[in-house]
Amino acid sequence: MTKTANTMWGGRFSAGPDAIMEAINASISFDQRLVAQDIAGSRAHAAMLAATGIISDSDAEAIRKGLLTVLSEIEGGDFAFSAALEDIHMNVEARLKEVVGEAAGRLHTARSRNDQVAVDFRLWVRDQCDAADSALAALQRALLDQAEAGADWVMPGFTHLQVAQPVTWGHHMLAYVDMLGRDRSRFADARRRMNLSPLGAAALAGTSFPIDRHMTAQALGFDGPMTNSLDAVSDRDFALEFLGAATICAVHLSRLAEELVIWSSAQFRFVKMSDRWSTGSSIMPQKRNPDAAELIRAKIGRIFGANVALTLVMKGLPLAYSKDMQEDKEQVFDAADTLMLALAAMAGMVGDMTANTDALRAAAGTGFSTATDLADWLVSALGLPFREAHHVTGSLVALAEAQGCDLPDLTLAQMRSVHAGIRADVFDVLGVDNSVASRTSFGGTAPVRVREAVGVWRKVLG
Amino acid sequence: MTKTANTMWGGRFSAGPDAIMEAINASISFDQRLVAQDIAGSRAHAAMLAATGIISDSDAEAIRKGLLTVLSEIEGGDFAFSAALEDIHMNVEARLKEVVGEAAGRLHTARSRNDQVAVDFRLWVRDQCDAADSALAALQRALLDQAEAGADWVMPGFTHLQVAQPVTWGHHMLAYVDMLGRDRSRFADARRRMNLSPLGAAALAGTSFPIDRHMTAQALGFDGPMTNSLDAVSDRDFALEFLGAATICAVHLSRLAEELVIWSSAQFRFVKMSDRWSTGSSIMPQKRNPDAAELIRAKIGRIFGANVALTLVMKGLPLAYSKDMQEDKEQVFDAADTLMLALAAMAGMVGDMTANTDALRAAAGTGFSTATDLADWLVSALGLPFREAHHVTGSLVALAEAQGCDLPDLTLAQMRSVHAGIRADVFDVLGVDNSVASRTSFGGTAPVRVREAVGVWRKVLG
Amino acid sequence: MTKTANTMWGGRFSAGPDAIMEAINASISFDQRLVAQDIAGSRAHAAMLAATGIISDSDAEAIRKGLLTVLSEIEGGDFAFSAALEDIHMNVEARLKEVVGEAAGRLHTARSRNDQVAVDFRLWVRDQCDAADSALAALQRALLDQAEAGADWVMPGFTHLQVAQPVTWGHHMLAYVDMLGRDRSRFADARRRMNLSPLGAAALAGTSFPIDRHMTAQALGFDGPMTNSLDAVSDRDFALEFLGAATICAVHLSRLAEELVIWSSAQFRFVKMSDRWSTGSSIMPQKRNPDAAELIRAKIGRIFGANVALTLVMKGLPLAYSKDMQEDKEQVFDAADTLMLALAAMAGMVGDMTANTDALRAAAGTGFSTATDLADWLVSALGLPFREAHHVTGSLVALAEAQGCDLPDLTLAQMRSVHAGIRADVFDVLGVDNSVASRTSFGGTAPVRVREAVGVWRKVLG
Amino acid sequence: MTKTANTMWGGRFSAGPDAIMEAINASISFDQRLVAQDIAGSRAHAAMLAATGIISDSDAEAIRKGLLTVLSEIEGGDFAFSAALEDIHMNVEARLKEVVGEAAGRLHTARSRNDQVAVDFRLWVRDQCDAADSALAALQRALLDQAEAGADWVMPGFTHLQVAQPVTWGHHMLAYVDMLGRDRSRFADARRRMNLSPLGAAALAGTSFPIDRHMTAQALGFDGPMTNSLDAVSDRDFALEFLGAATICAVHLSRLAEELVIWSSAQFRFVKMSDRWSTGSSIMPQKRNPDAAELIRAKIGRIFGANVALTLVMKGLPLAYSKDMQEDKEQVFDAADTLMLALAAMAGMVGDMTANTDALRAAAGTGFSTATDLADWLVSALGLPFREAHHVTGSLVALAEAQGCDLPDLTLAQMRSVHAGIRADVFDVLGVDNSVASRTSFGGTAPVRVREAVGVWRKVLG
Repeated sequence: MTKTANTMWGGRFSAGPDAIMEAINASISFDQRLVAQDIAGSRAHAAMLAATGIISDSDAEAIRKGLLTVLSEIEGGDFAFSAALEDIHMNVEARLKEVVGEAAGRLHTARSRNDQVAVDFRLWVRDQCDAADSALAALQRALLDQAEAGADWVMPGFTHLQVAQPVTWGHHMLAYVDMLGRDRSRFADARRRMNLSPLGAAALAGTSFPIDRHMTAQALGFDGPMTNSLDAVSDRDFALEFLGAATICAVHLSRLAEELVIWSSAQFRFVKMSDRWSTGSSIMPQKRNPDAAELIRAKIGRIFGANVALTLVMKGLPLAYSKDMQEDKEQVFDAADTLMLALAAMAGMVGDMTANTDALRAAAGTGFSTATDLADWLVSALGLPFREAHHVTGSLVALAEAQGCDLPDLTLAQMRSVHAGIRADVFDVLGVDNSVASRTSFGGTAPVRVREAVGVWRKVLG
Repeated sequence: MTKTANTMWGGRFSAGPDAIMEAINASISFDQRLVAQDIAGSRAHAAMLAATGIISDSDAEAIRKGLLTVLSEIEGGDFAFSAALEDIHMNVEARLKEVVGEAAGRLHTARSRNDQVAVDFRLWVRDQCDAADSALAALQRALLDQAEAGADWVMPGFTHLQVAQPVTWGHHMLAYVDMLGRDRSRFADARRRMNLSPLGAAALAGTSFPIDRHMTAQALGFDGPMTNSLDAVSDRDFALEFLGAATICAVHLSRLAEELVIWSSAQFRFVKMSDRWSTGSSIMPQKRNPDAAELIRAKIGRIFGANVALTLVMKGLPLAYSKDMQEDKEQVFDAADTLMLALAAMAGMVGDMTANTDALRAAAGTGFSTATDLADWLVSALGLPFREAHHVTGSLVALAEAQGCDLPDLTLAQMRSVHAGIRADVFDVLGVDNSVASRTSFGGTAPVRVREAVGVWRKVLG
Repeated sequence: MTKTANTMWGGRFSAGPDAIMEAINASISFDQRLVAQDIAGSRAHAAMLAATGIISDSDAEAIRKGLLTVLSEIEGGDFAFSAALEDIHMNVEARLKEVVGEAAGRLHTARSRNDQVAVDFRLWVRDQCDAADSALAALQRALLDQAEAGADWVMPGFTHLQVAQPVTWGHHMLAYVDMLGRDRSRFADARRRMNLSPLGAAALAGTSFPIDRHMTAQALGFDGPMTNSLDAVSDRDFALEFLGAATICAVHLSRLAEELVIWSSAQFRFVKMSDRWSTGSSIMPQKRNPDAAELIRAKIGRIFGANVALTLVMKGLPLAYSKDMQEDKEQVFDAADTLMLALAAMAGMVGDMTANTDALRAAAGTGFSTATDLADWLVSALGLPFREAHHVTGSLVALAEAQGCDLPDLTLAQMRSVHAGIRADVFDVLGVDNSVASRTSFGGTAPVRVREAVGVWRKVLG
Repeated sequence: MTKTANTMWGGRFSAGPDAIMEAINASISFDQRLVAQDIAGSRAHAAMLAATGIISDSDAEAIRKGLLTVLSEIEGGDFAFSAALEDIHMNVEARLKEVVGEAAGRLHTARSRNDQVAVDFRLWVRDQCDAADSALAALQRALLDQAEAGADWVMPGFTHLQVAQPVTWGHHMLAYVDMLGRDRSRFADARRRMNLSPLGAAALAGTSFPIDRHMTAQALGFDGPMTNSLDAVSDRDFALEFLGAATICAVHLSRLAEELVIWSSAQFRFVKMSDRWSTGSSIMPQKRNPDAAELIRAKIGRIFGANVALTLVMKGLPLAYSKDMQEDKEQVFDAADTLMLALAAMAGMVGDMTANTDALRAAAGTGFSTATDLADWLVSALGLPFREAHHVTGSLVALAEAQGCDLPDLTLAQMRSVHAGIRADVFDVLGVDNSVASRTSFGGTAPVRVREAVGVWRKVLG
């Protein structure tokens, strides 16, 4: 679209008014993507017009066959779209007239471009909900493979990007599987809510023809017709809701991407991206820039940008149809393409990446990361109140820090100098493996819990 | 918050570093709104700790009673919050210790501020989903009353703010009832998706204490516990989804508000706002500015602004908890307050407004608004193809325009001069009442359809 | 770009990883728009390398000539861009090598793609500031023509879309001329601020070659070189500031467009759009939908959407260069194209529109719009305090309303029944022409002031 | 504001319509912040009314003195604002009447609340431009101190968060000084553009009183009066432009904050935040969470959220004044407070932080970070074309990698095995100190350049 505009507006200020009006008004440069939906909608409409006796069976048959011909011409790539015909609807109808003759003139009975574009676009967005679901499932599977492989690989759990407690690699991967599960649920809800047909709303008031809106709704896979014709042609909630779900998903991708960029740094070395998903330097062959991760991180910009754009467009529009609403499609097209691309790239990258288990384990043990385990032991084994146990632990950490060692390196005597009741079995809870193994609460990081969760997700993902 | 900041930063640049850090770090000035949720969460946690034997029954009982005391103190308004104690959690716990003594120190066992704030905020947002549902239902009822009263009041249906076809007042009101119905469905989905408990995720890794997360989940009305502890403390999807649903709802409100502003103009005079929802002028007593409608129209700014703010905050945050996330609450608080206020104001305004049925009817008949009816008659009565019928209608409209009259004012002879087949019964479809009465397709504007739809909604709304 | 993505991702999930990486990574599909800037930058760099003795004069000459050849090939349209070569820089350099041989290999001395793309993009955005200035000036001229023609056409001045006081058409048009004047000033400031050269920053640290950054800066029309090489390659302020200025301009356009849509309604009939800037209906030949105004109103969506997108991208990026920044170009390209198109369309529409002076005048006199004039007269002629004058005026308006007449239709006796001091010369200030003529304060709506302002702007606009 | 709303809407749905209207309509809860500006504006207006003979000198004197009394009452904190009086203007005027009697009624002559609020808010935002300038200068000074201390401390320069080339600490700090310099310039431009007075525009049309708008403009420090009265009351560009400048500044802060968070991690250890700007853990006393940096990073959310909010509010508003515009203040208040707080916190944090020069230096030498230096030497010393030099360097890096050593550790013989022309003086350019010292191009990272730049900035900052 950018390029089209560029070409057209190269000599922008010399363009005459007619060229400017065509450039701002015509939508065929982008709404041609709706061709399959437009033709499906028209075919359903024609069949219904015949079934209700509004047009003859033979006209309907001619129209329906002719539409398939037009579709195959367009999909074949040798169709000359006309900007003078403005949009996909008029381009298809004009060609249909050439193909089937006068019968084409009966197709638009009891219909308007307002309900026609509403049904086309709704069908397109519905398809994108399905596409998002598939792409999300693929990424979940890639993460699940990582989770299964590393159910007991120890790594640092961070808060404030500071090491807080040891966790397992599998647990960390599963956190994203859960997020993406919510994304799928969100797209499914959006799909269900949008799955009502606007067809038959006509221009805005409905029609006096004895149409059967339930029939066309069913033919197009909708759960039924929308119940108010004004709403049917003026509603773009489905597009906004799709963009909202895409944005939250993009937030998740940006978080994972940020982690992968940080983890790929020479300072962290937690993961190694494959060559395929990195770029190098002609001069530093060992260099591996996490370009794909950075680009995925950035994609939230255009996805949420589209959400902002359409919200601004829809703000304060009176019913029923305003031309402003023509701005809906390019935003959703670009956001959907971007989301699918980002999901596919992330799935590829996650599938190919290699965890550096040594670096992960080494980092997990730094920063007295098992202090919480020690405090919990003081509570459960010695019966100290939580706040007192925290105080004792603080003193032990201070002692270890003064000694230049980690908590498990303190002697029992040293520990007892802080709190006399400490027993030798305290060492069972120190050390990163002990730590993660002990966190068996539901949803916890213990390998046993991680493997259970992997099993549950495997069943869900089929 | 603005005011607090103002006071504090009056002499901003002379404030010492400690004052600056406290100002940017402490959350008690706003998170005190979570007090009821915080105490409910702590009471459920204490009961569970006792049931699982982690603390004694008597400690649990003391804690649970003490928490009610603290709650009533705070709700009573004579509680001195301390900024040094940073947040609502620490303020409550500190006071609890004064009230019940040492037992208070056992409450925080197997818990962390990370899962505590997650559960508090989630409960708060869940309540707002319910509040939004009630407020939306109240507005639906106000619109339904208008729809029922005016099921057959004729008014113009607009496209491009140009008169297109006659519709009924009831039908127009019902378009918004349908939109708000989707809003309610969206909040319900958000509520269901967020209704899982993060409690027991502890800092981020779960815990080694034998807690029962299902028990606390049930006690707090959740459908169950979240299944990954890292996700549980780092997730703010529920807040983003709430803001997304609120934004689409605000789009709807902005559209209705825009219509009310335009309809209140001296040029339209479609509606009269009541004194209560307008402001006047000291000098022009007859003046009635639609202030409430304008303010409602504008409220989408702060609601969507909050959505943008939180999306920016969450972009690219590594797991699990980052302090950035403290920015979540004020945005959601303000957006929720704003939404409830806007819905209440709109319900009041719609309930009080008076339609000017004469002006509506007069406007409905302008612009040859029944031209489509005429074209449809040519198709159904004379069997003309749709496109030819449109051509004939265009000629008739041109004729009427040349005569300076409307379509129903043409004589049969004049009509026949354009198309010889036109019969006297054509006049049955001209005129705005005939037009709206004829549009009986499902979801159409005919009074009979409007009354049916009102009936359906009355049942839904109870 | 949408289309490319569509083609490529038709079978999205079957695309192999290499195809996905190429799709997300390559920028040649959009950054080819930078070709003129890229070649200008390279030519300046080559000349400087020779002048400082880093490469030979003959190499520089060959490079500079070869670059012009490549440019004309690309502008001629028969250049085959290669996605494998990723971006415009590599495509140009690869072709240059074919054209001039080994010398091409010396061009990239003391330079990096990081400073190269920074200079290219900055030059492109700088051109857009100039283009925006021209387009804004053209729209100002169209408004000025309207203002001059209608310096004394009376129309209503609105607050809350309620008639408040009479103003002149010329005054209303000039309000937008002033707004656009600020837009021009904003683009001029942005241009000045961005007019520093990043060239010579190399990858991020500068270079050890004895380059002359002032020389290249001057050759490219910059005011000088940027003063920090890290900042030079990581800065995208210039793009954000351009988008910010474009957004405020789009707010102005949306306000004017909204007015034109409302004014075109059958209820207002203040203006008539020309056929060229409206669309009709096949069935209602008299219909004139203000499509261009609606589309312009909507364009703020994609312009501000781009601003949001780039802000999200840049948030939290560490120095110096991250691949995320590749997302900058498409946003700015689209926003700039959109702005220029919207400005050109608005200029055409304003130039062609016809004010309905009768409707404007009639509307101006409704709603007791001269009540303020009456109150001011009571203050200045009778010496009443402002608040008391307001009270008296309110009583007079109430009286007129009760009589069913307007203020000038009251008799002097009736007026004196409210305030005994009122004299016959009060009638000099009533009536819309008297009202506007009297408001001669600086910047006021009086025709004399409007004509002065038109004169001032004529001089500015040349 | 959140809190006020909370209190008021605790029992939201039981609130009667009057309470709802007051809650949505009254602005006194927030616009009381404009008191100083409101009173300054009124005092200037009164003086002008007397100078032009519109009111008497004694009335003007009484008003001007009375206004100072009201101001000191309000600033003293014992003023009871009335929500029934709606806004700050009416609260002040009502109190003024009590203080000075009837003369107060003459103050509002030739003025309206529309131009009054416009002047108040404009003065307030102008002050914030000055405040931002001071706060930015303070942060620049803190960065400059760091830059001066570490003009020759070597650290890694990153691209893609991968080590690319060595740079100096001072150079990195100066990159932010340059960014903030642009921010100051942006606020200065915004200030200059907004520094025109709307006072005297009255309701929207100007006035018939012989006012002197230049006099009030001068008294209030404006450069002159705005030139169109409709524009004067409907313009909120100054607020949008302030928010736009604040957003770009917030982008800069978010980038620096992100770096500080990453640099504070156990894996990087580049800097140590002071205790004052970190928070610890009750259990891990050594822990130092970079809370202030995280909060600053997040603040872009609410700043840009305000920008989005106001843009949405202003979209499509017809002239001149609409009540929607009342939503402008809270957004700007909050954004301004947030920006000043974030700048003050960042200045404090930067001033207190300690660079870990050993860790910085060690990291700078990893990843063959001087490969570019080697390539440049091959070009300048041996005359190789740039692209060939890159190829040779790649082979040398591969050799070093295979040997498990860094570039300076290769022997001359090893080097010559790759390219026979390499001489012993190649070692002069390897090593991180040599590298940074050599990059003496203008704006480069060499300590000599850094010290020069520090000197230039010292002069600018005074």
